[in-house]
Amino acid sequence: MSYTFASDNFAGVHPEVMVAIQKANAGHAMAYGADSWTERSDEIFKEVFGKTAESFIVFNGTAANVCILKHLFAPWQAIICPFSAHIWTDECGAPQANTGCSLLPIAAKNGKITPSQCEALLSGKGNPHHVQPAAISITQSTELGTVYTIEEMRQLASCAHKHGLLFHVDGARLCNAAASLGCSLKALTTDLGVDVVSFGGTKNGLMGAEAVVFLKEGLAENFQYIRKQSMQLASKMRFLSAQMVALLEGDLWLRNASHANAMAKLLETHLRKHCSHLPILYPVEANAIFVQLPSIEVLQKLQKKSFFWIWDYERAVARWMTSWDTEPLFVEAFIAELKTII
Amino acid sequence: MSYTFASDNFAGVHPEVMVAIQKANAGHAMAYGADSWTERSDEIFKEVFGKTAESFIVFNGTAANVCILKHLFAPWQAIICPFSAHIWTDECGAPQANTGCSLLPIAAKNGKITPSQCEALLSGKGNPHHVQPAAISITQSTELGTVYTIEEMRQLASCAHKHGLLFHVDGARLCNAAASLGCSLKALTTDLGVDVVSFGGTKNGLMGAEAVVFLKEGLAENFQYIRKQSMQLASKMRFLSAQMVALLEGDLWLRNASHANAMAKLLETHLRKHCSHLPILYPVEANAIFVQLPSIEVLQKLQKKSFFWIWDYERAVARWMTSWDTEPLFVEAFIAELKTII
Amino acid sequence: MSYTFASDNFAGVHPEVMVAIQKANAGHAMAYGADSWTERSDEIFKEVFGKTAESFIVFNGTAANVCILKHLFAPWQAIICPFSAHIWTDECGAPQANTGCSLLPIAAKNGKITPSQCEALLSGKGNPHHVQPAAISITQSTELGTVYTIEEMRQLASCAHKHGLLFHVDGARLCNAAASLGCSLKALTTDLGVDVVSFGGTKNGLMGAEAVVFLKEGLAENFQYIRKQSMQLASKMRFLSAQMVALLEGDLWLRNASHANAMAKLLETHLRKHCSHLPILYPVEANAIFVQLPSIEVLQKLQKKSFFWIWDYERAVARWMTSWDTEPLFVEAFIAELKTII
Amino acid sequence: MSYTFASDNFAGVHPEVMVAIQKANAGHAMAYGADSWTERSDEIFKEVFGKTAESFIVFNGTAANVCILKHLFAPWQAIICPFSAHIWTDECGAPQANTGCSLLPIAAKNGKITPSQCEALLSGKGNPHHVQPAAISITQSTELGTVYTIEEMRQLASCAHKHGLLFHVDGARLCNAAASLGCSLKALTTDLGVDVVSFGGTKNGLMGAEAVVFLKEGLAENFQYIRKQSMQLASKMRFLSAQMVALLEGDLWLRNASHANAMAKLLETHLRKHCSHLPILYPVEANAIFVQLPSIEVLQKLQKKSFFWIWDYERAVARWMTSWDTEPLFVEAFIAELKTII
Repeated sequence: MSYTFASDNFAGVHPEVMVAIQKANAGHAMAYGADSWTERSDEIFKEVFGKTAESFIVFNGTAANVCILKHLFAPWQAIICPFSAHIWTDECGAPQANTGCSLLPIAAKNGKITPSQCEALLSGKGNPHHVQPAAISITQSTELGTVYTIEEMRQLASCAHKHGLLFHVDGARLCNAAASLGCSLKALTTDLGVDVVSFGGTKNGLMGAEAVVFLKEGLAENFQYIRKQSMQLASKMRFLSAQMVALLEGDLWLRNASHANAMAKLLETHLRKHCSHLPILYPVEANAIFVQLPSIEVLQKLQKKSFFWIWDYERAVARWMTSWDTEPLFVEAFIAELKTII
Repeated sequence: MSYTFASDNFAGVHPEVMVAIQKANAGHAMAYGADSWTERSDEIFKEVFGKTAESFIVFNGTAANVCILKHLFAPWQAIICPFSAHIWTDECGAPQANTGCSLLPIAAKNGKITPSQCEALLSGKGNPHHVQPAAISITQSTELGTVYTIEEMRQLASCAHKHGLLFHVDGARLCNAAASLGCSLKALTTDLGVDVVSFGGTKNGLMGAEAVVFLKEGLAENFQYIRKQSMQLASKMRFLSAQMVALLEGDLWLRNASHANAMAKLLETHLRKHCSHLPILYPVEANAIFVQLPSIEVLQKLQKKSFFWIWDYERAVARWMTSWDTEPLFVEAFIAELKTII
Repeated sequence: MSYTFASDNFAGVHPEVMVAIQKANAGHAMAYGADSWTERSDEIFKEVFGKTAESFIVFNGTAANVCILKHLFAPWQAIICPFSAHIWTDECGAPQANTGCSLLPIAAKNGKITPSQCEALLSGKGNPHHVQPAAISITQSTELGTVYTIEEMRQLASCAHKHGLLFHVDGARLCNAAASLGCSLKALTTDLGVDVVSFGGTKNGLMGAEAVVFLKEGLAENFQYIRKQSMQLASKMRFLSAQMVALLEGDLWLRNASHANAMAKLLETHLRKHCSHLPILYPVEANAIFVQLPSIEVLQKLQKKSFFWIWDYERAVARWMTSWDTEPLFVEAFIAELKTII
Repeated sequence: MSYTFASDNFAGVHPEVMVAIQKANAGHAMAYGADSWTERSDEIFKEVFGKTAESFIVFNGTAANVCILKHLFAPWQAIICPFSAHIWTDECGAPQANTGCSLLPIAAKNGKITPSQCEALLSGKGNPHHVQPAAISITQSTELGTVYTIEEMRQLASCAHKHGLLFHVDGARLCNAAASLGCSLKALTTDLGVDVVSFGGTKNGLMGAEAVVFLKEGLAENFQYIRKQSMQLASKMRFLSAQMVALLEGDLWLRNASHANAMAKLLETHLRKHCSHLPILYPVEANAIFVQLPSIEVLQKLQKKSFFWIWDYERAVARWMTSWDTEPLFVEAFIAELKTII
């Protein structure tokens, strides 16, 4: 399959990551994470997110989210999130099924929820007939390609803590958000009061590795049992840890994310220039762009040329995502194709 | 870390597997298993286990076991297994916690349970106060390095089916068992009435991939939801599928397993020759050997030279495992070391 | 505490039910439901709901709902219901926590959902990333004191079955709905294609007993294990069954429900006559009435005189419920009190 | 059904308890436990078990056990108990299914486990591959009609606390144990370091009510949510609380239990006198007696005259239980019947 705008997980493994994997294939190593690659990965997460950071690598993003919620919350507690959240809509109910917790979904503008929307869900506190909200969970960057500002993040953290809730960030694309805002990963999380992050690597050039990162001291205790029991403790862990080290030791995380973001912007620029009548549904702030096409027929013709996912069939909305390996030439070719079809 | 007898998951990735992974890193591919590597993997499992085989790749062996039990059984059902079973003792309670099912453990000689032991647990059938046995689960080769004979397998399958139970094989080391018995994987499973297998790859030279393989027709329906909800659907699946293809397309599975078995036999031969007074606790039929050393001090001295796990501290029992990469010279060096210490 | 409009579960036990309980206290009886009272209860449920009805008594309404969902659905399936549903809002997350299933809540006018609202939630069918809707669940009469018409029920049943879903009715107040519509319990359920009912007794004059009633043949198989495992199998079951027999053998269920409904109507009549400026929020079709008072101060003054629950603090909305023991004189006294306060 | 030796839950409701239930049926009362009967019940539990006691009434014994374990332990923790424990064998797997925890069963002489047996299960502490023992759970009096001595209890408590475990007592028949030992309920629990008790009422003359009683300060926090979510919060709670008050306010608990114990002793005396060749399998220390009959035919003939449960079909072992309502004349008649049959 040639390059597509289908998703950032259609892209392969970044060459530097592949080299790191091969280098890790040297003789025997302790299994289950008691190896030197994992030791280095743990150190780097502290360097990147601050000294209090405790990291645990897992296989995928759904697992990072689920393990966090399962570890921190009881089944009678609830997690506030937007309707567009991956945990609400894209994980086959894994959070509810594995934690027993309820999710309380909010209709959110541009995929971003606000403190007052969260507070409206707190009225049943202390009443055993109602689930007890215990966390606010947001996705940064969001499923709609938007990015919470630093100030919006700070206010959500503050709202959560004021009411005794924890603040969780699903950061499957946290690197894209940091690149977009021009800040460090720590400035976007630890420094704002984020308690725990699902840190994404797979969508940013890895073969397959994500991390649960506890930022608030004390939260990580006993998490090792949750990871193992949730079937997320890798046997030959070194091959996952080596990927994380490759991503975070230098600036690969930023290079990859910045490039993907820039390609989405390029796509937007071309669209506004050449197809200015096509509505772009949300601000293009990370590596996704949602475009309403003239008809489902147009959409499907284009889809046959280069695969992507239909976001809304009724309204003929396409989702196009860029990745670390998107080439400017491909953006241009795609726009040319679109113009021809329209 | 140089070579060890610690475990077959201390070994790295077989070179042919690493090449396959690199080859899979070509451009974009559909995510979540809708790619050509996974298509090929599905075909090969049918070639290897028979036409009815439906395979689903997951991240690790605990996951394979848990997803199978979760899919096939209700929480009021129970699974009969030996006390030494990985599902009873080594998965941090993941089977119970994720399925709700009870496990009914049996004290088993050499890690192998018998039909009459299973039947003794069926007396509460139909009584809602008691969990209802619904499966017999064995490990082949066992955790103790022994191997059920073809006839023993057939009788367990027959016992299970006679009482309306399913027969599950935890095949984390199924290749070692097949190599030991000199039979095909199909002859050891499908042909004997095994209903479902957890097929292991990681301990036999892969980087990290296992498979749920349903052998009895109809069992796989809706399993895709269980895999996803159990956080076992890989985003960039092609890199797992490519490993399985490398293992099963030719005879790599057999070469690796046969070699590991042969190295365990070599270790046994040397032991019987040079340290004939040391009790070998179980028949050496696969790639593990359990040896009682003169004292815990002797054991620990040897352990410092070359790491391995203590099986029984009280009795100073060591477990030594061989793998696809064990070299005969290393066996000899290890025995020499042992002799020196004793 | 004197009579209140707080809730129908503030009322005590109907005298005829109390007599039945005492009569059941005669010598020894088989435990766990193998007694003659339970045998009679099982028969009566078949008489009342039709020959295919299989009934199982449980302790409370939350349990009836949860056990049904746990028995019929897998954790990757979802249940469509209104936001006002007891299962969504009043059971401390018990359905999600005990079944693992997701609930998909709908904003419903007057607490009643429509087929087209349900169908809008079916787009992810067959996609393992999304939970799979498997049931439509409604409450009849609703939490807002309204009643689905026979035709509305029929259409929901038809919608559910057309898409391969089951149709569940939370009938904590099913008797009130039947009394309101002037039909039999069978005409309101089995005859319309309802698959399974949570049948309420406690709110209609019992001490404490509810029933899971499967109407569609074959659904009840193995439910006995779910009931026991869900901690809902009564040790001295005869004392629960005797209550159900007292309720359903004659017309006590109808007398109690009709009286409660009539008292709500009387309350409405007086309100419209004496306090016609007070908005009544929903049609008064069963035994509840929701009234917006001039201010939260007025509401709280009245509440001190006679306790009831605040439905909406912001808007000063009171919920008043009538029960089998509400006396007309009390309705008049309450209205008089209200007039004085206003 | 006339009187039997089948089980103490075949007996009906003690007359004093029935009167208390009727008296509670006076007008309206707050639902879900905010009533004066429940307030009084809470007080009495403090009087009986000590000031730190926090009590929560639930519907049955399985629920008491399950709610306690669910509240106090995480799914990766394990509970040590004898194979004969109700939680292991008689609750249809409810503890495992509802808590996710593993149970670690011990083969126990006379149904009683010892500290050294418990300690043998602690070797995997801190290792994420193994479940982590977090409680010792015993039944007092045991399922085999034996009673732990005060000293045995003290040593188990001490063993538990030494290793950071909690000590749970399934007290479905705690009153029988206290009556047998001639001590108060507090002397048998709180004073010995028991952390939490499942307190039984139903088998000792109630209609249906059990209690979770936390004895160690701080353990009860947030338990109200667990009870509700576990479907154990009674709507018309006053009718359960009134039963507990009737049992514990005076000495009814002791009168009932002492009588049942005395009747078991009487049965034993008659057996030893008239059928001295019949083996009595365990010491008769509470209200149960296990007798091996000459053949299964003899057993079944007797069973037809007066129903009881077969404990072991192979060995023709009968279990006979006495209750608060067993009459000495019935004991004599039963023995006469037995003599005739033999």
